[in-house]
Amino acid sequence: MNNEIKVLKFGGTSVKSIGRIEHVAGIVAECAKQCKVIVVVSAMGDTTDYLVKMAKSCSGNPEKRELDLLLSTGEQVSIALLAIKLQDMGVQARSLTGGQVGIFTESIHTNARIVDIRKETLADRLKDNDVLVVAGFQGVTETGDVTTLGRGGSDTTAVALAAAVDATGCDIYTDVDGIYTTDPNLVKNAALLRQLSYGEVLEMARLGAKVLHPRAVELARQYNVKLRVRNTFKPEDKGTLIVGGEMEIFRAISSVAIDKDQAAVAIMDVPDQPGIAGKITQALAKRNIGIDMIVQSFHPSIDHNSIAFTVSSDALDETVLVLEELKAQLGARSVQVDADCAKVSLIGAGLVEQPDIPARMFTTLGENSINIKMISTSEMKLSCVVSRDNAEKAARLIHEAFELHLLENKSAATVV
Amino acid sequence: MNNEIKVLKFGGTSVKSIGRIEHVAGIVAECAKQCKVIVVVSAMGDTTDYLVKMAKSCSGNPEKRELDLLLSTGEQVSIALLAIKLQDMGVQARSLTGGQVGIFTESIHTNARIVDIRKETLADRLKDNDVLVVAGFQGVTETGDVTTLGRGGSDTTAVALAAAVDATGCDIYTDVDGIYTTDPNLVKNAALLRQLSYGEVLEMARLGAKVLHPRAVELARQYNVKLRVRNTFKPEDKGTLIVGGEMEIFRAISSVAIDKDQAAVAIMDVPDQPGIAGKITQALAKRNIGIDMIVQSFHPSIDHNSIAFTVSSDALDETVLVLEELKAQLGARSVQVDADCAKVSLIGAGLVEQPDIPARMFTTLGENSINIKMISTSEMKLSCVVSRDNAEKAARLIHEAFELHLLENKSAATVV
Repeated sequence: MNNEIKVLKFGGTSVKSIGRIEHVAGIVAECAKQCKVIVVVSAMGDTTDYLVKMAKSCSGNPEKRELDLLLSTGEQVSIALLAIKLQDMGVQARSLTGGQVGIFTESIHTNARIVDIRKETLADRLKDNDVLVVAGFQGVTETGDVTTLGRGGSDTTAVALAAAVDATGCDIYTDVDGIYTTDPNLVKNAALLRQLSYGEVLEMARLGAKVLHPRAVELARQYNVKLRVRNTFKPEDKGTLIVGGEMEIFRAISSVAIDKDQAAVAIMDVPDQPGIAGKITQALAKRNIGIDMIVQSFHPSIDHNSIAFTVSSDALDETVLVLEELKAQLGARSVQVDADCAKVSLIGAGLVEQPDIPARMFTTLGENSINIKMISTSEMKLSCVVSRDNAEKAARLIHEAFELHLLENKSAATVV
Repeated sequence: MNNEIKVLKFGGTSVKSIGRIEHVAGIVAECAKQCKVIVVVSAMGDTTDYLVKMAKSCSGNPEKRELDLLLSTGEQVSIALLAIKLQDMGVQARSLTGGQVGIFTESIHTNARIVDIRKETLADRLKDNDVLVVAGFQGVTETGDVTTLGRGGSDTTAVALAAAVDATGCDIYTDVDGIYTTDPNLVKNAALLRQLSYGEVLEMARLGAKVLHPRAVELARQYNVKLRVRNTFKPEDKGTLIVGGEMEIFRAISSVAIDKDQAAVAIMDVPDQPGIAGKITQALAKRNIGIDMIVQSFHPSIDHNSIAFTVSSDALDETVLVLEELKAQLGARSVQVDADCAKVSLIGAGLVEQPDIPARMFTTLGENSINIKMISTSEMKLSCVVSRDNAEKAARLIHEAFELHLLENKSAATVV
């Protein structure tokens, strides 16, 4: 046994039954032969959804502090069961809640960010045990209230722990083989990518690819944590490795992402004066609603403007509420909504240097009668908002147009 | 609103569904109009059994620390849901786990005793809230590990909190109307007792009556907490009041208790030498097995003795294991087991002063061909071990012989 520590994270589907917990325990026990292990687990299967449903049947708008205390039980059950299974296999294991590990967060319930991890607690516990089984998705405030980390919380827990103990790696076990050039359920010949940079994965995640949450990837980049996405049910498979900026050679394009939960909202005919976009985003930020693409129409001949932007579907109702309140204050004419949108994005580290790429993407969509509602570009991505009906077709066409299926099984360095 | 604080406790059946949680919230909200309230709740319905079953399917002998962390989630779910419901009704409520409330225990997992409760934490939280919803059955060690209090844990939590805040009363809500002269499922005309002393209830609880756990009653007596057992589904009903030793007038007999989970064990033909009973009880105590009645046969003519005693059925296997180990050391001939026993007890504060009572009890059983295997008496009770088959019949006969159905609806002072 050397001094190395490895972090493994298993999602809800990987621990959804006692049989699966046993399988996961096998992977962990095998790894624990090589080094100390910290395992982060999510709640079993649909537990979290079930708990939310129960809370909603108690109140249409359950208080967030209570909701966090409720949801945190899901992970607490998984860690206890996994630890019991590991101990039964003879592994010196111990389960720890977020609070017990000392994962301190802000006191923003249901969406807290990690402020600090008590490294000494972890070091102490690792001295006495070969495996620590830590509850993902949860933390505790300085005053002892339980918080949850929101979406991607368990991935974030895993990466944060890996950073705190300077782990040799953080393996995110899931129910797919790794990261693909696009959703393999959508495009049959989607290619598995063996190696990616943080930046590429970050864009993919932000743009709707469900494999990893951007928070976790950002944290991994910040602390240079070597991430690996791999399949719980094919533990011999290496999956996709995500590493830092030491690679100077990038792929032009690495994947197509699709996010079907988008809505477009427009506030029409606002008198043209400075600060309107600021007022809107500020009002939304107060409700913790992030807006995505924002398009301001430009009519030099008239003194009215319209501002359109996208939000995630689940924030739509609240967004409209905020805008209706703002409407009079801004002197706007109306608020318009297009609820059934999707965002299809092309991601690649070398994208910005090749101006023919946007052209090829737009032409592909146009030739296939898919109307583009909004466009947004950045250094590593190119996104189009289309109607939700067209989203999958658009992704398939773009994947084909850029021949992404040919990226299969090659490492980044060889496919420039 | 005065400065009074009341503690209410609701068991698992009282919160087994969202509908029932809503009902409980109604009772709590009503009470909160009068004074500050601390509500203690158990896990919903069969949750605890379900969690134990999951743990057992991970390991035949799950580690107790992990089991506690697992089981504590049951109450954590109930408190969050009840708090959400209360808030939804406009009540300023807050849920707290055992750890958050500062219920510190020994670090004996699955059966910890409360060492201390942080009164300041409670006072602080009560300043900001009208209702605190506290998880029963659980505490935390000084090092932050979650413990559970074992059987009767939630009742104990409620009484301990009532003592800590000097509550005006502690109402234990359950699914029966109060405490009866015997199990009303068994004896149709069992009478509801309106008032009892701690001592009487303590004997009843120890002797198998399931209404209150002796730990909770002992604690209530120690801190003079006014206990009331009442029906969740008849909140207008006052149930049974249990109060302290200020009453100088006792009933001779108050109830018949029955405990069907008893086993008799005998260690046969032990050479007659001092200290044998000590060795046996010591060996059993090490495994945390308490023995109940103990009978040592007395044969002045021979130099061998036999010792028989009762244990609860679930401790039988371990007891036999311990005795088989001891057998050679003690030079005993054999270990004999009578697994199907029951204990029927007559309880009453004035029992000791009336020698005709034992006679009437034994005669009643004898006339009905019920064989008495062991007898044990103490200041407030008179117990007979009979075969399990005869237990219910025996209880019915004794209840009838002493005309306990006539105690109905009278306060203790009037029925001397």
